[in-house]
Formats: sequence, C-alpha cells, structure tokens
Amino acid sequence: MKSPKASHPSPAYTDLKRRHRNIGRLAAIAEIISRDFLTTMPEGAYENRLDQISYLYRRIHDDIVCCDAHVQIEEAQEHIAAHPALWDEWDTANLIGMVRIHKDHAILDHNMMEESARIANEGRRIHRECLKHNDWETAQAHLERVVAHVRKLAKKKAKAHNTATLYEALIQEYSPNVSLKQLWDWFNHLDRELNKLLPEIMERQKLRTPIVSLVGPYSKEGQMWLNRSLLELLGFDFDRGGLYETGHSPVEGGTPDDTRLVIKNVDPKNFMDSMKSALHEGGHGLYIQGLPTKGGRDYQPVSHDMGTTMHESQALFVEMILGRTPEFFEFLSPRLEGLFHTVRDPSLTAGNLYRIKTLVQPSLNRKSADEVTYFFHIFLRFQIECDLIEGKMEVKDIPAYWTEWMHDHLGVMPQNHMEGIMQDVHWFVGKFGYFQAYTLGHMVAAQLFDKIQQDIPNLYSRIQCGDFKPITKWLNRHIHSKGSITPWDTLLKDITGHDPSPDFLISHIENRYLGE
Amino acid sequence: MKSPKASHPSPAYTDLKRRHRNIGRLAAIAEIISRDFLTTMPEGAYENRLDQISYLYRRIHDDIVCCDAHVQIEEAQEHIAAHPALWDEWDTANLIGMVRIHKDHAILDHNMMEESARIANEGRRIHRECLKHNDWETAQAHLERVVAHVRKLAKKKAKAHNTATLYEALIQEYSPNVSLKQLWDWFNHLDRELNKLLPEIMERQKLRTPIVSLVGPYSKEGQMWLNRSLLELLGFDFDRGGLYETGHSPVEGGTPDDTRLVIKNVDPKNFMDSMKSALHEGGHGLYIQGLPTKGGRDYQPVSHDMGTTMHESQALFVEMILGRTPEFFEFLSPRLEGLFHTVRDPSLTAGNLYRIKTLVQPSLNRKSADEVTYFFHIFLRFQIECDLIEGKMEVKDIPAYWTEWMHDHLGVMPQNHMEGIMQDVHWFVGKFGYFQAYTLGHMVAAQLFDKIQQDIPNLYSRIQCGDFKPITKWLNRHIHSKGSITPWDTLLKDITGHDPSPDFLISHIENRYLGE
Repeated sequence: MKSPKASHPSPAYTDLKRRHRNIGRLAAIAEIISRDFLTTMPEGAYENRLDQISYLYRRIHDDIVCCDAHVQIEEAQEHIAAHPALWDEWDTANLIGMVRIHKDHAILDHNMMEESARIANEGRRIHRECLKHNDWETAQAHLERVVAHVRKLAKKKAKAHNTATLYEALIQEYSPNVSLKQLWDWFNHLDRELNKLLPEIMERQKLRTPIVSLVGPYSKEGQMWLNRSLLELLGFDFDRGGLYETGHSPVEGGTPDDTRLVIKNVDPKNFMDSMKSALHEGGHGLYIQGLPTKGGRDYQPVSHDMGTTMHESQALFVEMILGRTPEFFEFLSPRLEGLFHTVRDPSLTAGNLYRIKTLVQPSLNRKSADEVTYFFHIFLRFQIECDLIEGKMEVKDIPAYWTEWMHDHLGVMPQNHMEGIMQDVHWFVGKFGYFQAYTLGHMVAAQLFDKIQQDIPNLYSRIQCGDFKPITKWLNRHIHSKGSITPWDTLLKDITGHDPSPDFLISHIENRYLGE
Repeated sequence: MKSPKASHPSPAYTDLKRRHRNIGRLAAIAEIISRDFLTTMPEGAYENRLDQISYLYRRIHDDIVCCDAHVQIEEAQEHIAAHPALWDEWDTANLIGMVRIHKDHAILDHNMMEESARIANEGRRIHRECLKHNDWETAQAHLERVVAHVRKLAKKKAKAHNTATLYEALIQEYSPNVSLKQLWDWFNHLDRELNKLLPEIMERQKLRTPIVSLVGPYSKEGQMWLNRSLLELLGFDFDRGGLYETGHSPVEGGTPDDTRLVIKNVDPKNFMDSMKSALHEGGHGLYIQGLPTKGGRDYQPVSHDMGTTMHESQALFVEMILGRTPEFFEFLSPRLEGLFHTVRDPSLTAGNLYRIKTLVQPSLNRKSADEVTYFFHIFLRFQIECDLIEGKMEVKDIPAYWTEWMHDHLGVMPQNHMEGIMQDVHWFVGKFGYFQAYTLGHMVAAQLFDKIQQDIPNLYSRIQCGDFKPITKWLNRHIHSKGSITPWDTLLKDITGHDPSPDFLISHIENRYLGE
C-alpha cells in the first residue's frame, strides 16, 4: 500500500488533504484553548476568550468551505469514479469524510458556526452557575435561546441530509446512519425487556449480603494516584496526556498527542466517584490516543473517531463493563487497603466493592445511575428531545413532564430543578441528540465484550491481575486504529459478525445481575 | 472625543480596524497556546504543537498582508492627509501602528514568519536541555541556525527601514527610534561612569555591617503567598491573571484580560530569588493589565505597549528600584518573621535584607547581578550582537570572547558554557537586539523614579506601609493607559521634561550606593 503522505494521483484530492491538514491544526488549537477556557483560565478573561474561540471556529468554517472547496470535491469524486483502482480504502474513506464535513458546513453561514461555538463554550459556565444557585429562570432563558438556535440548525441539516424529521438530522452528528425509527425500535425493546428484568433484579438483590458503606476519608492524593495507576495499567500514555481534577464537570476531548483528561473534584468520602470518572474519561482517552496519526493521516477526516456512539462505547466499556467485573475488584481490594492505610476493612473487600457498584436502585441522577436503570434516564431525555426539536414541546414544559415521567417510570421524583432537568450539561451547550449515544454506546460496549470474551484467553484471570493491556490492545487493533475508515455500525458487524443489537446488552445485564 | 468604536469617516481605516480586531483575536490565542506549550503541555505533544503554533503565526501574517491591505493603508493615509481634523490622536497613532506592522510583515514571506515562530517556541526547550547537560555542541548548532535566520531577517528589515546597519534594524523591534550611534553614546557614557563608581562603591561597602546569610528553609507555599501578596499590594488584578511557579524559565507576555505570570521554581534556601522574579514579572504584568482596552481600542495597534524598553522599564522599576528601597524592606521584615515562623531573626532585619539586595559584587550571571554591575552584562552581549549580526563574528567565536571580556571587565571567568554564553534564553529564541532594552529600561526606570519622587507626596512612608498603589496608579496614568499613542522616548520627555538620558541612572546609583 502506498504511503498516504505521497501526493495522490488526483491533484484535487491532494489539495483537499493539504486543506484538511491545516484545518486540523487550527482545530487542535481550538481544542486546547477551549480546555483552558473550561479549566484554568482566569475568570476575568471570560468574555474575550469566548469571543476569540468563537472567532477561531468561524475561521475554521471558512477554511472548510472557501476557495472552491466544492469544485475540488467534485473533481476528486470524478477521479475516484474514473479510476477506482487508484484509491485505497483509506483515501476512499477520507474523501467520504471530506464530503460529509463540507456538506455539514456549506449549509451554515459562519455566523451560525460562531453562535454554536459560543453556546458550546459559555453553556458550561451558565450550567455551572445555574446548578450552584438552583436558578431555573436563567437556565430556562438560556435553554430557550439554545433550542431556537438548534431548531434552525436542524432545519438546515434535515434539508441537506434529507432526513425524515428535524430530530433525525441532529442525531446524525452523534450516531451517523441511525434512523429515528431504528432508535425507537431499539429503545422500545430495551424499555420492555428492562422493565421485565428490573423487578426480578431488585428481588434477587434482597438475598445478597448487605452492603458495608464506605467511610473514608480517602485522601485526594491517594485517589488521584489510584486513578492514574488504573489508566497506566490500561495503557494510557502519560507522555501524551494526563489526568487532572478540577471543580468543573469533566472535560472530554483532546488530540492523540495531547489528551489531558479532566475529572471533577474527588470526594473524600467516596473514592469510587472519582474512580468512575477516571475510568470513563480514560476510555475516551484511550480511543483518542489510539487514533491513526502516522503516514500523513493525522488531521485527515479518516483519522477522526467514528462518532459519539463509538466514543461512548469505549468509555462505558471501561467504566461499566470492565470496571464492574468481580475480578476487577479482586485486583483492586488489597491494593486499596495499602493505599488508604487500613487492613481487613470490611468495606474494601472485593465482594463488598462489587456489591456497591452493582447495586440496582432507581434514582434521580443519570451520572450516578446503576447499569440497569441508566437506560431510563436516557429514554426520558430522548423523548423530550424528540418533541422539543419538532416544536411539540417547549422548554418551560420540561420540568413538569420530567417529574411525572420519573415518577411513572422509576418511582422517584425530583424535589428541585437541580435534581431534574438541570443535572446535565448537554442541552446547555447545544448538544441535542447526544444522549441516545450513551445507550447505543452501552449496547456496543456489551456487544464488544461478548466478542472479547471469546477472543482473549484467560480474560478474567488477566483482569484479576491488573493485566488490562490485552484488552486495550484488542480495542486498539479493532477500533481505535481504524479512525473512521468505515461507519461505526459496519465496523461493529465486521468485528462481531452481528448488526448492532440491544440483545447483547440485555444478555450482559442478565448474566451480571441474574446469573448463576 | 468620539468613541473609537463608531465607524470612522475613512472607510478604509474602518476596514483596517476590523482587520486588526480579528488579527488581535488570533494573536491572543497564539499567546495562550504558547504559554501552555512552555508550561503545562504534555511532552509528547511537542512536535505537533510547535507545528500548530507556527502555522497560526503564518495565518496571522497572511491576515496582516492579504486582501489589499496596502491599498487600504494608502487610502487611509490619503484620508488623514486630506482631513486631518477628522482624526483624533488615538486614531492617528493607531494608523501609524498599522503602517508599521504592515511594513514589518510585507517584507517577509510567511515561511520566514513560520520559522521565526518555530525558533521562538522550540528555542526555549533547546536552551533548557543544553543548559541541563552543559551541551555546547547542540547549542552552537542551534544558534548557528538562528543567527543565519536572523541575519536574513535583518537584511530585509534594514532595507525596509533604511537603517545604517543590519543590527540597527533589529534594535527597532525592541527600542523603536533608537539609532545604533545613540546606543553606543549612552553605553560608552555608562561604561565610563560606572567604571569610576564601581571601585568607590566596593570600597564603601567594606565599612558596612557584615551580611547575615539567609538560612531558611522557606516553604514554597509561604514564598508564593508572599509573592502573590506583594503583587496584590501593587494592584495586580488576580481576576484577570495569576502568578504560578514552574520548572521553566519565566514566561513573559499575556493579554490585559489573561495575564498569567510564570516564575521559575522557588528556592527553599532563598526566598529572595522567587520574590525578585515575581516583582520583575509583576512589573510586566501591571503594564499589560493597564493597557487600554475600552472604547473599541482593544486589539488595535494603538493599544499595544510601547516596546521592550518601556516594558523592561516597568519590570525593572518594580524589581530594582522600588523593590530595593530600605523602606520596602522595612515593610517586609516583620511580616517575614510571621510568615516563616521565626522571631528576632538577624537575617530578616530590614537592614540586613537591604544589605543583601544592594551588595555590589562582580559576578558571572546576568540575572542575579546587582544593580551596578548589571550594565556590564548587557554591554558584553550588545557588543557581541553588533559583530555577530554584521558577520564580523561567528557563533563559535563567542565563548572565547566572552571569557576574555568577563575577565578584563569584571575580573571573573566562567568555568563552563553554562556560566557563560548559555545562561540566557534570548539568543536561543531569536531575540537579537533585545538585551540593550534592559539597560535602556533601567535608565527609563531611574528617570521615572526621579519624577515619581517629586509627584507622590510621602512616597517613602507609603512604601514603608506597603501602600504601593499610588505608584502603580501613577505608572498607569502616565504610561500603561497610553498604549502606544506616542513613541516611548516622546512620552518619557512629556512626563519628565527630559529626553532619555543615562544620567538619571547614574544619579540613582550614586544616591543609593554612595549617598549620605
């Protein structure tokens, strides 16, 4: 196979590659400057930095569409049609990515792009402030502005992608190729099955040894050492990244050579909180660090990830699948005693830790939800988004709908907006259509786990020894290193032999919560 | 006076202002990303980040010269000639700044710009590594590459600015409007006078109470609290900036709303090291935070500082003039005892601290040199630069020249390259012509101090109480808030009634070291 670095027989495609290398350079800068904005920047820089970041995204937008980009794309498309043999699979996929990016930008003007960037960055801060003061009034005003903007975006996207509904157009950004009908099928299936399993699981739980609560205090230094060590065991490269804690929500993202993960403040009373965050962000980080960067592929669309569904699958695989096996806790338990200076601590036995992390208990908070009820949190948000984007619901109607839905489906009721609609940052930053990708990611993670159990010999005894690297290696070979050479669902079928299906997730839950 | 925000009667000038606002946005991003590069970025991101930053500077360069910038400038110049009454002093100065920036860039192609940005960023790292391993071989190879690049730059600049020599062209970047002849006159005068004063001062010192050495240890937290508190007393706005310590050399720069100062590692045995750094960088920081940002002036050339000479004058004023008055140490002394948990400590008396910081002692290191011999370190570097840029000396010849010069002028000899040519980062990052600005800055600082003593009532008793803000207010009103509305030498004359002159520095030294 020829090096993708060499110039391609299609001069238009060679030009496009150069264009995307430069776009990628600016996008990497935007990534770093946004993380700084969200974490360590002095407060007084807020307004101007927001303006600067939005402007940078505007320039990136202009670079994508300017200077006859559409002509270059047409010429490259003509070339591939006339000389298919001259295009290997990487270049072919790369051109598909270029076309998609161009299409997504050509429908917008750069003012809309700037507004999206502005919402994405300031929304986090507004969310934080509203959450701190239970300030629904400010939140509602902000969300109304965001929804108005996102509806406009959705209209343009629906037209360009010819989707059945506005909301389906938004989903494409996170889970490409998934129809709204398909999502409803999967989600209704999960709703049905999990509603059957949930009471059984809750019943079974009553027979278990009672949980011994964690007491602590667990030092911040100890927790961060643990979190970093787990990432190191997973093969996270600290020369090209790091793990930091901050008062903010976790910050995702980064580039393969600069993957600085940020998790929220550690809780001295519960080391499992920051560990959960670290494992989740670590799963994202391993994906980012494993993306293809060699042979001139860095910065090219084909070196991007396969979208949010695949990204969340990697995070949830590490956090919820691997990180909740009994063997994981067997590895962890004795080391925790040494780390936190306590011996024969009944709260730190492998069995007790496992019981804590696999306790199924309907609750109000998505992030701290258990693996079984997690889906319902997503299903609620999905239904709201469907109606909200299509104009069948307004922001002001959400809280009442939320309360009723939670009561009817999980038997719990938020006492205030902080426990309800304001808990997640996603809508505040304009991410409508994102939530579904958590459940799809969970499905993918379970489907991959099914295959990994067949592929990696002695998997469980490896986990018990902290020998996680064969798993990361497997994920890297089959997923991370592939960039976006195929759509995520095609790749999943290539790897596992099956189309994406919720059945693997249901089986996984049956095995873990109702097995033996 | 009309608001500079409103569109100007000259449409070309209005366009230029919009252009510079956007350039300023990208330049602010470049500033932040470079600081990240130099301080907290993971090592593995080195190559790509360097590439990204250089590319960003290339884009800034293109934005300055592209799209008929020269036509807009010509039209604006025609407008001001035809309608001088429609141009206030801010807009007039702003146009002059635009012309200068355009001229400085139009002579370069963007590859040269990219190479300059690359050298500026990677030079710091190369310097750090060479210094760590006393690796003159690598340093020499790097410096030869830099000198070759800088000589090329100087040729283009000399032609554009019509300067007498190549080196004079380089000086313009740091001390605008200063001729090489003028510099030689000032420096020869200082050389003569200081050579007369030095033996007298050394003789006088023998009569002083002997110094009690600092012992410590002084905790890092205590030192950083002290450093931050001193900056707070000076009026540094921590909402728009901060003070951090790092293993790297100090990082200057920032923007008025994001002035994060970085100083090198604190020394547990000598709190005065980090304090000196903090006061110096604090002086820079106060200047940056005080630049005009209101009324549409932010990002405009007229809101930039007046160049390196004025910048260093602000840093040296705080560090060497204010920060070495006996009254400053009277304020400091009792607080140090509380801070470092020691009472009646003979090393921490005001008198002893003053004696430590005013000890005159020829030495090898510029940064730790006393206020009297500091000039000679600059004079050496200045002479080398003169010959190096004109091609009368090569990099390989510097070490021998350096050793001999230090021996002849200060009676000390470096034992290795770390104590000699490799001590400073400036040449490694391409800053040839910068050093002279330290001495000019020292001259300006002394000249300003002379005027401040007349203008601020009870100056010394204010210092004794830690009431530093009237000084900062004075500096802000007369200098910081002026942006670059006049050249630095004109402003100095406006403020003090005198042209820049080394006499104020000489008087200051006589007063402090030979007075009463």
